[in-house]
Amino acid sequence: MFKLLSPIKKAYIAGFLDGDGSIYVRAKPNTSYRFGYQIALYIVFFQSAKGKTKFEEVCSLIGCGKLRIRKDGILEYVINRIDDVKEFLIYIKPFVILKKKQVELMLKIIDLKSKIETEKDFRLLLKLVDSYRELNYSKKRKVRTLTP
Amino acid sequence: MFKLLSPIKKAYIAGFLDGDGSIYVRAKPNTSYRFGYQIALYIVFFQSAKGKTKFEEVCSLIGCGKLRIRKDGILEYVINRIDDVKEFLIYIKPFVILKKKQVELMLKIIDLKSKIETEKDFRLLLKLVDSYRELNYSKKRKVRTLTP
Repeated sequence: MFKLLSPIKKAYIAGFLDGDGSIYVRAKPNTSYRFGYQIALYIVFFQSAKGKTKFEEVCSLIGCGKLRIRKDGILEYVINRIDDVKEFLIYIKPFVILKKKQVELMLKIIDLKSKIETEKDFRLLLKLVDSYRELNYSKKRKVRTLTP
Repeated sequence: MFKLLSPIKKAYIAGFLDGDGSIYVRAKPNTSYRFGYQIALYIVFFQSAKGKTKFEEVCSLIGCGKLRIRKDGILEYVINRIDDVKEFLIYIKPFVILKKKQVELMLKIIDLKSKIETEKDFRLLLKLVDSYRELNYSKKRKVRTLTP
């Protein structure tokens, strides 16, 4: 669905992402994964519940996420399937200004994630995830121990 | 400057306004004005200070506002000359989704404001300002007394 959007719609969505959206990635400790971490990445848009109808209009432009209402009444539109996140980022990338670095680094992370073979690859992926988080929050890098 | 933007840039700005921007109007009691109120209207975009360079890029697209750094470090880009607000709203209106009603009502307010002749006109303007504020905050209408 997203592929059929006009450049104007994509530019609108890029502006909306720059203003309201967030692009997240984190390495969640999870022993059922090969290297002890699940790499979770997602894009979220927020809106107060009273703007629901109009917000649904924006969400339907994007098409590949899920809308949910949080307990505090805030609407969240979440894209969390990795292929959807990738496709979404590729399509809006030419129009993004504020979050350009985030978009580029996240696409790098997605690309690397699809090619992981060795623990060394995975360590590199974790490094990228950490540098992404620094970009977003200026937090210190975490020290991580991989599951053998 | 704003007039020369491509539809794609305008769409981006409309999306950014929908995500991050605010359009305000208020009737400030001020006895030096003919009917006892100053109608102040403005558009504001916010950004955290660390994104300054990229934010300046977005602001330069808009062109007609002023960038300032608040004491708490937040960047504010403000458009407050009424002609600039009007021009800005007219140009992005076709691309706005979430704040469509706000844009339309604000243009109505600006139009009416330029044609005020009698106290009756001014009362109508105040009514519009109040209905705008209800749109934004769902607040109760204020009861106002005009200066004779």
